[in-house]
Amino acid sequence: MDARPIGVFDSGVGGLTVFRSLEAALPGESFVYLGDTARVPYGTKSPETVGRYGVEAARFLRKQDVKMVIVACNTVSSVALDAVAAEAGVPVAGVIQPGARRAVALTRRGRIGVIGTRATIASEAYPRAILALREDVEVFSSPCPLFVPLAEEGWTDNEVARRTAETYLATLEAAGVDTLVLGCTHYPLLAGVIGEVMGGDVALVDSADAVASEVRERLSGDPRLAAPAAGAPAPSRFYVTDSPAPFAAVAERFLGRPVGLIGRAGIAGE
Amino acid sequence: MDARPIGVFDSGVGGLTVFRSLEAALPGESFVYLGDTARVPYGTKSPETVGRYGVEAARFLRKQDVKMVIVACNTVSSVALDAVAAEAGVPVAGVIQPGARRAVALTRRGRIGVIGTRATIASEAYPRAILALREDVEVFSSPCPLFVPLAEEGWTDNEVARRTAETYLATLEAAGVDTLVLGCTHYPLLAGVIGEVMGGDVALVDSADAVASEVRERLSGDPRLAAPAAGAPAPSRFYVTDSPAPFAAVAERFLGRPVGLIGRAGIAGE
Repeated sequence: MDARPIGVFDSGVGGLTVFRSLEAALPGESFVYLGDTARVPYGTKSPETVGRYGVEAARFLRKQDVKMVIVACNTVSSVALDAVAAEAGVPVAGVIQPGARRAVALTRRGRIGVIGTRATIASEAYPRAILALREDVEVFSSPCPLFVPLAEEGWTDNEVARRTAETYLATLEAAGVDTLVLGCTHYPLLAGVIGEVMGGDVALVDSADAVASEVRERLSGDPRLAAPAAGAPAPSRFYVTDSPAPFAAVAERFLGRPVGLIGRAGIAGE
Repeated sequence: MDARPIGVFDSGVGGLTVFRSLEAALPGESFVYLGDTARVPYGTKSPETVGRYGVEAARFLRKQDVKMVIVACNTVSSVALDAVAAEAGVPVAGVIQPGARRAVALTRRGRIGVIGTRATIASEAYPRAILALREDVEVFSSPCPLFVPLAEEGWTDNEVARRTAETYLATLEAAGVDTLVLGCTHYPLLAGVIGEVMGGDVALVDSADAVASEVRERLSGDPRLAAPAAGAPAPSRFYVTDSPAPFAAVAERFLGRPVGLIGRAGIAGE
């Protein structure tokens, strides 16, 4: 048994969708969440820079004495998971493998679509992971850079969101995909319009749920790593690299409860 | 006479609109451009973090031995111009004052609109600067966060851009503004749809042109600061904090010519 917290890392607030799924799936565990709000977004930056930020985050979480690191950010998971794992010194899980496995399990006609940031799509991490699991599928990818700012603006169900989704998703629709991986933590917030545009028979894969299920399986299969069954877990802690105040407001909206004190992590310089 | 280059600083590529105007207005001068592409955007971050980034940029430009620093970024100009000036050790010009002066000169009915990032609008730097120049005007402000990602995506003239502009600008239109300050370096790229939505009788103020005119006036009034009249200026130099390759492509599109070698500035950590 291991009462230490699980570290969750994201470029900003988007990873709170993953945090929420983890918390629901693992009520006995305690978490340390780190959002690099002073340097967000990562999806438009080079793999080298994203890798450096990921390593700095891993170093911070290691100092927080976490027993495991969940990389909630698809971009970091795509381009820098190995570098993060080398620095973290504890088991590390990204969102690509769980999302790929779920997509392969769900597809009926073997036509899988993937959407994400420019960096995630350019890395081809999802197609590689999916094709490694099953060779007889086709994978179609499309970057959707405007989905993140739309979600952050709260424009998730208006005409602009709908037109943007229509424009980005036209080629995936034409390709006849039956399953679509939402390869960015923000995209589940736009699941409504994405589902509308793709049609009701296309299965949407939310990597937040996928990674939470896999972490739960892993912990239940490894009692040394899971938290003690008795007693309530320590309250989760939150850290950001920019001012905590705006993060507190968004986090409360995401989680439906106040998150208490939010710390400042010095990894982006001070 | 002073043959040293003029430093131009922006959070990313947007400041190239200012660089272009400066280059056109001051053909005898040489420039050093710095874009903080590893940490862009600034407009969604706290004044404290933006201030720290601005000071780091000023320190970098100081080491490049510039004779003057132009802060092309509206967000930095709004929240951290004094901090940049204290660090730079040479004359510093932001874009707020020139934009405010031009707006006051252009307004016919004394009703001025200002659009910008959340940080720029929250700072109220433009209303303060405008009202300090002339008391009998009214200033109406509105943040337009999606304009930057739209411009970066190249969606400057489609239905999404038009609907977004209609949504953001509705209150300014209703307020009957006759002059609109484009208070962000990216916004001139959307001037077409902004002008369409606001109507042809609303004057648009581009701070790039405004700051270039003021710097030209300043140099022509101070011969010790201006470059020697004889001989071609040294080629301008470009520095970024993330990978140079994507910047090179955008810069070539903005400037209509290749920019040559692009350096890597270590101010965002290495």
